Amino acid sequence: MTQGTAIIAGQGALPGLLARRLEAEGAPFVLAEMEGFVVENPGGWPVERFIVERLALLFDRLRDLGMTRVVFAGAVSRPALDPGRIDPKSAMLLPALIPAFQAGDDALLRAVIGLFEDAGFDVVGADAIAPELVPGDGVLTPDQPSEDDRADAARAAQIVTALGAIDVGQGAVVAQGLCLAVETLPGTDAMLRWLADVAGGCRADAAGAKGVFYKAPKPGQDRRVDLPVIGPGTVAGVARAGLAGIVIEAGGVMILEREATLAAAQAEGLFIWARRP
Amino acid sequence: MTQGTAIIAGQGALPGLLARRLEAEGAPFVLAEMEGFVVENPGGWPVERFIVERLALLFDRLRDLGMTRVVFAGAVSRPALDPGRIDPKSAMLLPALIPAFQAGDDALLRAVIGLFEDAGFDVVGADAIAPELVPGDGVLTPDQPSEDDRADAARAAQIVTALGAIDVGQGAVVAQGLCLAVETLPGTDAMLRWLADVAGGCRADAAGAKGVFYKAPKPGQDRRVDLPVIGPGTVAGVARAGLAGIVIEAGGVMILEREATLAAAQAEGLFIWARRP
Repeated sequence: MTQGTAIIAGQGALPGLLARRLEAEGAPFVLAEMEGFVVENPGGWPVERFIVERLALLFDRLRDLGMTRVVFAGAVSRPALDPGRIDPKSAMLLPALIPAFQAGDDALLRAVIGLFEDAGFDVVGADAIAPELVPGDGVLTPDQPSEDDRADAARAAQIVTALGAIDVGQGAVVAQGLCLAVETLPGTDAMLRWLADVAGGCRADAAGAKGVFYKAPKPGQDRRVDLPVIGPGTVAGVARAGLAGIVIEAGGVMILEREATLAAAQAEGLFIWARRP
Repeated sequence: MTQGTAIIAGQGALPGLLARRLEAEGAPFVLAEMEGFVVENPGGWPVERFIVERLALLFDRLRDLGMTRVVFAGAVSRPALDPGRIDPKSAMLLPALIPAFQAGDDALLRAVIGLFEDAGFDVVGADAIAPELVPGDGVLTPDQPSEDDRADAARAAQIVTALGAIDVGQGAVVAQGLCLAVETLPGTDAMLRWLADVAGGCRADAAGAKGVFYKAPKPGQDRRVDLPVIGPGTVAGVARAGLAGIVIEAGGVMILEREATLAAAQAEGLFIWARRP
């Protein structure tokens, strides 16, 4: 029997991308949508809605549908729990979740993955379904990083690693060895917009290296979920900020809409480099 | 004989503040201004202009003027060296500077301090002249930090320490435990302006703690030079960004225009807390 795949769908284009891929392969799948979110569903595919308070019922339902594999796709914000809605079976799951709710997003996600695994599901990363989403080592564009860009990338990687160790951000901008910006809660786009406004005045040598945007997962992050993502919007932001290119950690960052992203980079004369850490 | 003080003057109000203080005490002093900079000189005090290429001549001149003590006041950007202007005596000093020129701002500053010390000058911090510039432990305003603010300050201190260890920034904004912004090359004001634009949308609980701006020197920094600074402009930026207050590392951050700064904070209902690290 072909195994079915449940796509636990959060925000953005990723759930739809995975659904389309599974559909093309003729593989059975279902989108699972948490109440309070509306999944992007360009294919009008079947959707199972669930609430966190009744997670055990979702497990039963997915099993009934023949789903044996689960992929988390796209971010969801942390739900509030309504104790009045918890069913008895799901209540048995809560002892594993409550401490994780206190301990931060990563811990909560690990705990949720653990619950799916304990329920017998095989939890895989999006790249198990669409490997081209997560590029390995190499420069993906005709434009290549210069020696200066490579040095800036190495410095940015050092910064993002140090930040990741204290659970802050997954991105940074470095130009001519100097850190121009660090990604924080408001995210990549907000950082790049700001940089576009101030970048003209903050490079030591205006004629020197333009700088790179670097993105990587957090150290120790479970690579099956919540990998950082770039896409055509990232390219547009990096171009407006006047940077030379984008560097992602090889094997650790997804490119959504890969063709459109690479085409946009080429049109802007930017490089995209998946760099071995 | 009263010792004279040479104020090696960089940008901003600090050189003038120190000059005014020394004048009030009737202590002899001189402002030393590096060519290419124009020192703020509200008192019209005597100014010795120098060029880095002839540092040995500055040493001689300061000695002739009876200056035995040196204080570095205000930032200077790294000068370019013109080999054609170097005099023979200063050329002897260069071997100590050249490697530091490669190694970063902190190393360069340490090397320059070393040269002044080797030349027999006593290098002191600005707080040796005006101790109230660098507050010790305590809340300086009528408004007090809440328990949430104290927790946010602790998290911000952790972040700034981690960043300082890799030589990035000296400030961060944390609200409700989450890092909203990290100070990078463009500086505090640029960070706070950005936060004012996006802050409304990036707190987990809109009715919860507003967050704090935290500032500290880099770990291992020579506390005699280039301490981070806050002032009335910082208070205005923090108010616009909707934060609850300012936390500085006790003994490690200067408040310029202390009265105006504290008055502005009080008017905005903000706290300023010099926190023991």
